[in-house]
Amino acid sequence: MLIRTHLNPRVLNAEYAVRGPIVIRAQQLEEQGKKIVYCNIGNPQALGQRPLTFIRQLLSLVEYPALLGHPEALQFYPNDVVERARMILLRHPHGTGAYTQSAGIPLIRAAVADFISKRDGIPASKDHIVLTDGASKGAQSVLMALLRDDRDGIMIPIPQYPLYSATITLYGGQQIGYHLDEHNGWQLDEAVLSESIERAKSQGTSPVAIAVINPGNPTGGVLSEENIRMVVHFAKQHRLSIIADEVYQENIYTEGAGFHSFARAMHAMGEHSVSLFSIHSVSKGFLGECGHRGGYLEIRNVPDDVLAQFIKLQSIQLCSNVPGQIATYAMVAAPQPGDDSYALYVRERNDVLSSLKKKAEILDRGINAIEGMSLVSPLGAMYAFVKIDLPPERHVDLEVMDPDERKEYEAMRDSKYCMALLEETGICVVPGSGFGQQPGTLHFRTTFLPPLDEIEKLVTKLKSFHEKYVRELELA
Amino acid sequence: MLIRTHLNPRVLNAEYAVRGPIVIRAQQLEEQGKKIVYCNIGNPQALGQRPLTFIRQLLSLVEYPALLGHPEALQFYPNDVVERARMILLRHPHGTGAYTQSAGIPLIRAAVADFISKRDGIPASKDHIVLTDGASKGAQSVLMALLRDDRDGIMIPIPQYPLYSATITLYGGQQIGYHLDEHNGWQLDEAVLSESIERAKSQGTSPVAIAVINPGNPTGGVLSEENIRMVVHFAKQHRLSIIADEVYQENIYTEGAGFHSFARAMHAMGEHSVSLFSIHSVSKGFLGECGHRGGYLEIRNVPDDVLAQFIKLQSIQLCSNVPGQIATYAMVAAPQPGDDSYALYVRERNDVLSSLKKKAEILDRGINAIEGMSLVSPLGAMYAFVKIDLPPERHVDLEVMDPDERKEYEAMRDSKYCMALLEETGICVVPGSGFGQQPGTLHFRTTFLPPLDEIEKLVTKLKSFHEKYVRELELA
Repeated sequence: MLIRTHLNPRVLNAEYAVRGPIVIRAQQLEEQGKKIVYCNIGNPQALGQRPLTFIRQLLSLVEYPALLGHPEALQFYPNDVVERARMILLRHPHGTGAYTQSAGIPLIRAAVADFISKRDGIPASKDHIVLTDGASKGAQSVLMALLRDDRDGIMIPIPQYPLYSATITLYGGQQIGYHLDEHNGWQLDEAVLSESIERAKSQGTSPVAIAVINPGNPTGGVLSEENIRMVVHFAKQHRLSIIADEVYQENIYTEGAGFHSFARAMHAMGEHSVSLFSIHSVSKGFLGECGHRGGYLEIRNVPDDVLAQFIKLQSIQLCSNVPGQIATYAMVAAPQPGDDSYALYVRERNDVLSSLKKKAEILDRGINAIEGMSLVSPLGAMYAFVKIDLPPERHVDLEVMDPDERKEYEAMRDSKYCMALLEETGICVVPGSGFGQQPGTLHFRTTFLPPLDEIEKLVTKLKSFHEKYVRELELA
Repeated sequence: MLIRTHLNPRVLNAEYAVRGPIVIRAQQLEEQGKKIVYCNIGNPQALGQRPLTFIRQLLSLVEYPALLGHPEALQFYPNDVVERARMILLRHPHGTGAYTQSAGIPLIRAAVADFISKRDGIPASKDHIVLTDGASKGAQSVLMALLRDDRDGIMIPIPQYPLYSATITLYGGQQIGYHLDEHNGWQLDEAVLSESIERAKSQGTSPVAIAVINPGNPTGGVLSEENIRMVVHFAKQHRLSIIADEVYQENIYTEGAGFHSFARAMHAMGEHSVSLFSIHSVSKGFLGECGHRGGYLEIRNVPDDVLAQFIKLQSIQLCSNVPGQIATYAMVAAPQPGDDSYALYVRERNDVLSSLKKKAEILDRGINAIEGMSLVSPLGAMYAFVKIDLPPERHVDLEVMDPDERKEYEAMRDSKYCMALLEETGICVVPGSGFGQQPGTLHFRTTFLPPLDEIEKLVTKLKSFHEKYVRELELA
């Protein structure tokens, strides 16, 4: 019989804190009847966010095309949805039932290219789009293709979304962490990038790409155009490909601040020699359709024979799921003024976004008012990466620890904090060590997805828990 | 800019003939207006197979639950489908919109366990089921977990479905091919297995698992219970895990011949020490729902900490797509006598299966009547692996070639044949070398999925093409 030690050590070593031991404990407590507030994962519809009617109507018709032959059935669908469903099934008669081309249905890839082109005012081509099962699969394809062996490294932010660290571990490459600047709205810092890449090289690692998450996960930070240009220069100078994780591009809640894509910045700079992989998803934004696992990978500035390798990689898994492809279509080709769906679509979209904005503000104000807790505002994406100050433990002397010991101690410390928070309040968050953090700092990541009234209670509960936890530490 | 030589050599080396150069050429010809008969891939609905109404109705309601509030809308759905949709949404209120548990919705895993238990008369547990994006992802997880480094090897059949060879190449393990016995209905042969494993060991490869595809792809062969028991003994003796690819379990068209699962055989043998991974899918059988990418992995005879690693692997990709999970539910929990859907479900299922049976018979008879072509009957799955005899080329002396040269020559020869077949007739099949074959033999794989009248024409066209091709070779 297979035992643990027979398994691939890279699988054993891969860690994905967003669904780690604290979440497993939360599920146990929930089964025992405790109310859990799941703030561990960006899973909006699990916390009461409603799906957009337009998307679900479209999927419902495309799944069951027989309805299109029943005028009475169609009274439950706006005309533009009916027309779209007919158009999709006319141009793609196999609907959701057959494998598509490996890269995805051409009609939908063309709609994605059109979306990018309109968003950024730049050219885009359907032949450079691969439809993927969520953005995660897009990122994993890129990492699989770029990591030649265990000497190759990918620059990833600290803190980062653990898909990156886990996948690099699985595929046997090196992580080259670069710290984001918490004091500067979680922007990237050129000096830090340079120091980090030089240290990696001096240790024999060959950097092949830099991954950037914008807006940030877990930070919620939004990069300025200037910051993005700096990264492009840096990538060019060091011959790195760029992996731009742009799944939160609609989740920016500050007047004036906007989303700047890497594609647009590179186009504006006239930069056509840095290879760019950007990913997007139906799971975030105002759709929150996590369960549909839809998304795309756009590939720029690579020769055709390299592009062909990405299509081949996709072909080994045949194609991404077709309902997810349809959901991606609905994301990039939204109802337009004049469409019957338009008014409802706009109202539902604005409701989601304004609710997220309101909740971000409550969390922001509330947490920054707690002594010993702070976070960087304004918040983008769906997350706050909350800094917590804990008094030192008397019996622990940080000075005598080597860096690895210290990291382990701090990981134990923030995990213990989050576990205690869960046991006491039912609030489930992810320890900062699951994403990485500056040595000597402690954090947790929380989403601001729970309903409004729960977010208010959350702040109150966090405050009293933190005060009690600190008091007990001081008395210990 | 990224160029080809910067890419992971394992990605460059991975080959997936089912969507390889011949298929790419077919798409070009199609764009130029040529009619192509796609026999390259088991994609039933792309070739006119109709989806089962039951599945699509269920998906349509679960995607758009608002319909459940409109009695007039529900007149287009049978009562049992409406009840199922309500039950799913009651027990899983987030429907298709949220990430599920990493292993999949518990209700659906329980239904899968129940299906296995009833099919085989053995116990099964929902906690040993992982819902996956099609069966491919299940197989890939297992290979990822079992291959520790490039000294580990997986025994795979020759001919095999190239998912296995491609994935082993991607993950950096060794293929240990074992030839199936074409003269004995493509069964496994113990002496061949032994010889193959001993040769691998003598070359420094450490065998960790044996993959068996039953019913066979590309062979269409169906393994006897005795043959399966032999494999279980062999695996036990050599401490191998078993990967049982059982996605064609419903595709057996011969009276008397039945599907025997590895799980059932092992249970009957009282064998609880050999680890078993079995995969199944909604893409094949009589559903043919390839586009939904639904499937499951059942894991037996592993300790809990090993099981946990497979759930963790799934968690890194969050979960499989939820419409695919619902389609899997519809597969394992079909309508029962007394349900409003039952009569139509049975009729549609039987239509699909009897049509496949009829087409298999036509292909079987037709091809075996062509001089220089033959195939093993009866045919299971959706494929025929057709043996073709070509006269030797005068200028080629096989005797002076080493085995690698000879393999390459034969691969070139069957690819050339299939390309010529495509150019001349529009029939798109996959060369035998894409699956592997006995040295000195040439094959191609064709599905028997095209509509009945096309299958008849296909046989006629194959005959005249083959005769002409042979004549030209003889004259050359």
